[in-house]
Amino acid sequence: MKKRMTWVVVVAVVGVLTGAAFAQFAKTEDAIKYRQSVMFLVGQHYSRMGAVVKGEQPYNKEALEKNAILVESLYRLPLEAFMTPGSDKGSGMKADALAQKDKFSQMHKTTEAELAKLAAVAKGGDLNAIKSQFGAAGASCKACHDAYRNK
Amino acid sequence: MKKRMTWVVVVAVVGVLTGAAFAQFAKTEDAIKYRQSVMFLVGQHYSRMGAVVKGEQPYNKEALEKNAILVESLYRLPLEAFMTPGSDKGSGMKADALAQKDKFSQMHKTTEAELAKLAAVAKGGDLNAIKSQFGAAGASCKACHDAYRNK
Repeated sequence: MKKRMTWVVVVAVVGVLTGAAFAQFAKTEDAIKYRQSVMFLVGQHYSRMGAVVKGEQPYNKEALEKNAILVESLYRLPLEAFMTPGSDKGSGMKADALAQKDKFSQMHKTTEAELAKLAAVAKGGDLNAIKSQFGAAGASCKACHDAYRNK
Repeated sequence: MKKRMTWVVVVAVVGVLTGAAFAQFAKTEDAIKYRQSVMFLVGQHYSRMGAVVKGEQPYNKEALEKNAILVESLYRLPLEAFMTPGSDKGSGMKADALAQKDKFSQMHKTTEAELAKLAAVAKGGDLNAIKSQFGAAGASCKACHDAYRNK
């Protein structure tokens, strides 16, 4: 398969607003759609790595690294959207997520850290280390889904 | 309003695959959902800049720059999703987009360039220049929507 790749490096500055009553969403539905959009993209790029980890796709360092960095970057965006009051209604998120804001936020931060590690090992290029950290990050995702996502 | 901001700088490496028959989407619906997710996020962050440009929100250099960089970065992702065969069906995209692949791609690249300029002027911090480039980028968005999005 012949293909030409052009890599463009961009810097995404991600701000985390903490402890602020700073409404970024015009409607609660926007907050839900925002986090669902992010999580869909996270899922897509995480699955692309999963296909390599499972041996379904050949390992390409640049492609895997790109996916790992994208997942890490995207995942930094939606915490505020998750924590928007009333946004459990009409969504797959349990009311517990809002009732246990600190615990939810802590789990989100833990996953952020796992995804940052995944991006780091992806940069390193050791496939065994990548597989191991892919599993660790996935476990972190699953813990939060089990706790706060409706079945 | 008291708030604490922690800025985290992450580097997103975005790869552009050109001229390759490299299927990234398991289903056509995934391609549609992928681009819709990206475009929703682009719209959200573009609107946040719009509120400043229209004077509805105070100008904060860091916040506006963050939004401009996010929009630029996100917009680099969905071209392949737009160009997925059959993905006009069941979506808001006209069949013309796929029939006129080169023209569509060129318009996408033009908007990419306008958004890169917007990120650059946002970094510069001259609000008048930002307003002007916000308008130019918006015109580029509109041209493509007029041509290829169903009313």
